[in-house]
Amino acid sequence: MNEDMTPMNDSIRALAATVKPGYSLPQAFYRDADVFAADMQAVVGRKWLVAGHVDRVRAKGDYFLYQIGNESLIVVRSDADTVNVFYNVCRHRGSLICTEPQGRVSRLTCPYHAWSYGLDGALLAARLMPADFAREDNGLHRCHVRVFHGLIFVNLAVGEPPDFDATFGDLAPYLDFHGLADAKIAHAQSYPTTANWKLIVENFVECYHCVPAHPEFCSMHPAEALVAFGAGPSSGPAQAVQSYLPTLKAWEERAARLGRPLGTVDDGPDSSHLRLLLQRTIRAGYESETEDGRPASCLMGKRQDFDQGRMYLSFSPFTQLVATNDFAVLFLFTPRDAMQTDVDLYWLVDGKAQAVDVPRMIWGWDRTTRQDKEITENNQRGILSQRYEPGRYSDQERRVATFQQWYLAHFGRAPGAAAAA
Amino acid sequence: MNEDMTPMNDSIRALAATVKPGYSLPQAFYRDADVFAADMQAVVGRKWLVAGHVDRVRAKGDYFLYQIGNESLIVVRSDADTVNVFYNVCRHRGSLICTEPQGRVSRLTCPYHAWSYGLDGALLAARLMPADFAREDNGLHRCHVRVFHGLIFVNLAVGEPPDFDATFGDLAPYLDFHGLADAKIAHAQSYPTTANWKLIVENFVECYHCVPAHPEFCSMHPAEALVAFGAGPSSGPAQAVQSYLPTLKAWEERAARLGRPLGTVDDGPDSSHLRLLLQRTIRAGYESETEDGRPASCLMGKRQDFDQGRMYLSFSPFTQLVATNDFAVLFLFTPRDAMQTDVDLYWLVDGKAQAVDVPRMIWGWDRTTRQDKEITENNQRGILSQRYEPGRYSDQERRVATFQQWYLAHFGRAPGAAAAA
Amino acid sequence: MNEDMTPMNDSIRALAATVKPGYSLPQAFYRDADVFAADMQAVVGRKWLVAGHVDRVRAKGDYFLYQIGNESLIVVRSDADTVNVFYNVCRHRGSLICTEPQGRVSRLTCPYHAWSYGLDGALLAARLMPADFAREDNGLHRCHVRVFHGLIFVNLAVGEPPDFDATFGDLAPYLDFHGLADAKIAHAQSYPTTANWKLIVENFVECYHCVPAHPEFCSMHPAEALVAFGAGPSSGPAQAVQSYLPTLKAWEERAARLGRPLGTVDDGPDSSHLRLLLQRTIRAGYESETEDGRPASCLMGKRQDFDQGRMYLSFSPFTQLVATNDFAVLFLFTPRDAMQTDVDLYWLVDGKAQAVDVPRMIWGWDRTTRQDKEITENNQRGILSQRYEPGRYSDQERRVATFQQWYLAHFGRAPGAAAAA
Repeated sequence: MNEDMTPMNDSIRALAATVKPGYSLPQAFYRDADVFAADMQAVVGRKWLVAGHVDRVRAKGDYFLYQIGNESLIVVRSDADTVNVFYNVCRHRGSLICTEPQGRVSRLTCPYHAWSYGLDGALLAARLMPADFAREDNGLHRCHVRVFHGLIFVNLAVGEPPDFDATFGDLAPYLDFHGLADAKIAHAQSYPTTANWKLIVENFVECYHCVPAHPEFCSMHPAEALVAFGAGPSSGPAQAVQSYLPTLKAWEERAARLGRPLGTVDDGPDSSHLRLLLQRTIRAGYESETEDGRPASCLMGKRQDFDQGRMYLSFSPFTQLVATNDFAVLFLFTPRDAMQTDVDLYWLVDGKAQAVDVPRMIWGWDRTTRQDKEITENNQRGILSQRYEPGRYSDQERRVATFQQWYLAHFGRAPGAAAAA
Repeated sequence: MNEDMTPMNDSIRALAATVKPGYSLPQAFYRDADVFAADMQAVVGRKWLVAGHVDRVRAKGDYFLYQIGNESLIVVRSDADTVNVFYNVCRHRGSLICTEPQGRVSRLTCPYHAWSYGLDGALLAARLMPADFAREDNGLHRCHVRVFHGLIFVNLAVGEPPDFDATFGDLAPYLDFHGLADAKIAHAQSYPTTANWKLIVENFVECYHCVPAHPEFCSMHPAEALVAFGAGPSSGPAQAVQSYLPTLKAWEERAARLGRPLGTVDDGPDSSHLRLLLQRTIRAGYESETEDGRPASCLMGKRQDFDQGRMYLSFSPFTQLVATNDFAVLFLFTPRDAMQTDVDLYWLVDGKAQAVDVPRMIWGWDRTTRQDKEITENNQRGILSQRYEPGRYSDQERRVATFQQWYLAHFGRAPGAAAAA
Repeated sequence: MNEDMTPMNDSIRALAATVKPGYSLPQAFYRDADVFAADMQAVVGRKWLVAGHVDRVRAKGDYFLYQIGNESLIVVRSDADTVNVFYNVCRHRGSLICTEPQGRVSRLTCPYHAWSYGLDGALLAARLMPADFAREDNGLHRCHVRVFHGLIFVNLAVGEPPDFDATFGDLAPYLDFHGLADAKIAHAQSYPTTANWKLIVENFVECYHCVPAHPEFCSMHPAEALVAFGAGPSSGPAQAVQSYLPTLKAWEERAARLGRPLGTVDDGPDSSHLRLLLQRTIRAGYESETEDGRPASCLMGKRQDFDQGRMYLSFSPFTQLVATNDFAVLFLFTPRDAMQTDVDLYWLVDGKAQAVDVPRMIWGWDRTTRQDKEITENNQRGILSQRYEPGRYSDQERRVATFQQWYLAHFGRAPGAAAAA
């Protein structure tokens, strides 16, 4: 059975057919519980989402919990080569097994009746069960998992998820250059946001709001780049792109000489994950995305020298990576409810970094993310009005329109189709 | 299309048909989300509601927010003669534009992408929009507004609202005498109440509860007047009315000599706004509704001397004005959710008043409103019982029955009709 | 009309038909609002539930409130022989009448309009009512009540409840021996729990979790008894029962010599209240269920000496009594919402007890109940996962399976029937 074709989704498909291209979505998509349930089933539940970085589970038995929708997942290392992800639900009577957000364990033992599972999820001990009880059928429910250059990807699909290597394999050179696999977490911060997950994505994938809302962010970047490439290769007006191109070209030549792999990725709305890879310059004279442009840590990965560049890599609308020369910021957008989304940031530095200036490092994105939380929550509240109606996108919000097309395609709306009457 | 005839309201109409005259309403009217949605559409959304007094927006660019249901409205002065009311929803992507409860602005600029609107709501600036984007079609959504003797009336109707002058024009002499247009706010206080808006109205329009619940209020009034006219000309038993009439007649003659315009308004249940105007005496020897009867401010409006009278003027079940000689209290009852209502009080004094004794002025209504909040919340909680059933009204609650008939008429129930089987 | 046969319950009956015997219930039974409404109507609303002990209402006019679901009940003594229970809903406009959790009153007077009821619920005073108003028809709605050996049983049934004496009469000798009628409350504590009521019952009626979760509890009891009889005569594996039987037999002979009435009650899933009575030994050398085994109060009831025994008496899944020689603990499990249940404990001692060592007395059950609250809330949270599926019961959870059969029988599922396809 095609899970997309359930009756629940029929009404969402009908609604999706009415969306006017180039305009924001109707209220229901940002508010209604049935749309959220459909999102969880047809979109969130089918994607490879980053749950965290392996630095959180370096030693055998290290675990952390990843909460998504109503699900609690246990991300746990079982040996040097293996990270497993299990649903945090005992097969006996359904209790949570791990109740602390992170820790180290030798077994996964349910605190209720002490059913005990190995780090591989196998049921090892269950006292006094009937003779015909089959332990081998009662291991923990597994979630699909793939560790790729230090990033722990999970996929909640019940059946087969999209092929991982076919989806992300071509990103290996970039992650390798940045040393992601060996990176370590220098700082982490949560910004839980009272807004639908799509508002958070729409906020992140455009830079039309950067000038009004993000003074710190703008101070670290060339103004023309923000307009042209604020949210991807095709995110700004053509004229702005043209005016920034010479600067970009010059930088690309220098960066290539310093060994940086170049190239872009710009998935279309009919792709599975809507990936985006964009590399460009930071503000002239700056070596890092900090207040004064001086670095906050040592060079990251295989770099030999500062090149005044940055990389923006979006694995999907739910997972973003922004890398400057000395640190990278991993953004995890995790839907919890129709109007509640977790926004978690991890600042990663080189695995060999000794002295990290954390306040300097987080100055830009901590402030920017606090601003985005406020902006997005105001957006959500305004949309609850009966007078809200979808509004026209600017030329600098093309990526938002692309995201919308990609999203609607999960509900049968062909990208580029006209709105139903 | 008649907005009253939507399918949503059909079930409410069926429910309304079963209400037994002379009894309180069935549980659903005080609790259910679908009744509240119908109330917002068919009742609240069609009335002229007072959002505040012009003293809040004296200077150009002064604004305040008025929240009703899920709506946030911007009430803003654009010039000496004009107060505009806009939906606080950006036409771009729906963000709130104003996020502070009040302030002064030169333009209405959205904090998200800086779309900027004039104080008249016109879209002035929107960067980087497509060539065919029409700014003139993207002004802020307007709410109907009318300033009348200093009171800012709004009407959320999508189409034409009831004619304002036909509805309220005859009240001009009373408001003029009390100097409402030039009054100023001496104190404001909010009493958010966890109860359906109809329970709050029902509480306000009867004085059957005054003796058990409101010692301060009763101390300021003649007992016989409370029974007879506690909530309007026809609100008490006939016998009590008869016994109070001589006192009232004597007062009317004296008040007329002092220039007070007399007269009553007593709209029936088939009226659009169920207005009520009643003037009567306060406690013998008292000059004002204060603890000891001495005034808290100077005479208000066109008065020449204290006349020991008071005016109760209800513009609709949602807006009440109670005026003693030296101050007036404006009561705004604003539905927010099925079981949540804003109750906001503004104490108004003469525009030229210098020394106002605020504690003395608010002594009566602040305490009385706190008591009403507690009473009404207890009423709401009791009604949630499965054993709650509509109860019989007393002879002193005639105005509650009238309000009920008026309310039910919005759902097709003819006043005076017998209950459906 | 049979109240069980309402349309609402049809869907629950269909769901009940699919439950697999020997496994925990499907998610809906622990989460859904419509199941909770059906539970309130078909199960909770038909049972005799203990609301408290008469020690709370010793004097005329003493009352306390008992909250269940959306109901507030007034439990009030009207004379030396009578405790009445009324719905806390004024017959006038539905206000709560009593708003404090307990107190002493001479009449039940509504704080809104002062309608005043006698302690027998009769309407005594209602001012200014129409001439045809019948006070005698407007007494407070009564709840069925029966005081039995000091325990105040209530029954919310609209019609006739199950015959009380036929249901509980045979328990008199046990309650009499323990002196329940004359007992007094030495301590009370509330443990409101964010979990469906069935999870709380399922937790209480099995001791499979005692060893992992309850070190204090286990320290007071012989290990073999916990496995064999942890939750009733048929609650543990046959082998464990056999190994504990000699100890039990020896104790029964000694206890009988000391005057203790022996016997067991073990209602099946087709009974109305699923009662359970079990008596057994505590830890060797202990006189009471305390940390060091020494008593916390004097002998309770008709006892002549300590006999090292305990009684577990379940009046229904909602009311439990655990009695050691010197005190008894009354457990009230009261459903409030689909995922919220009140858990209230009353520690009772002999009516003539002078010096009660409260910390020593509550050491065991206070800690155990805190542990159960945490366990049960974890169970609830885990069950919210889409991957939760009913799990197999162990041999030590037979009583849970029995409870489940009893519960499902209220929705047409014959105990022992196979699951529908």
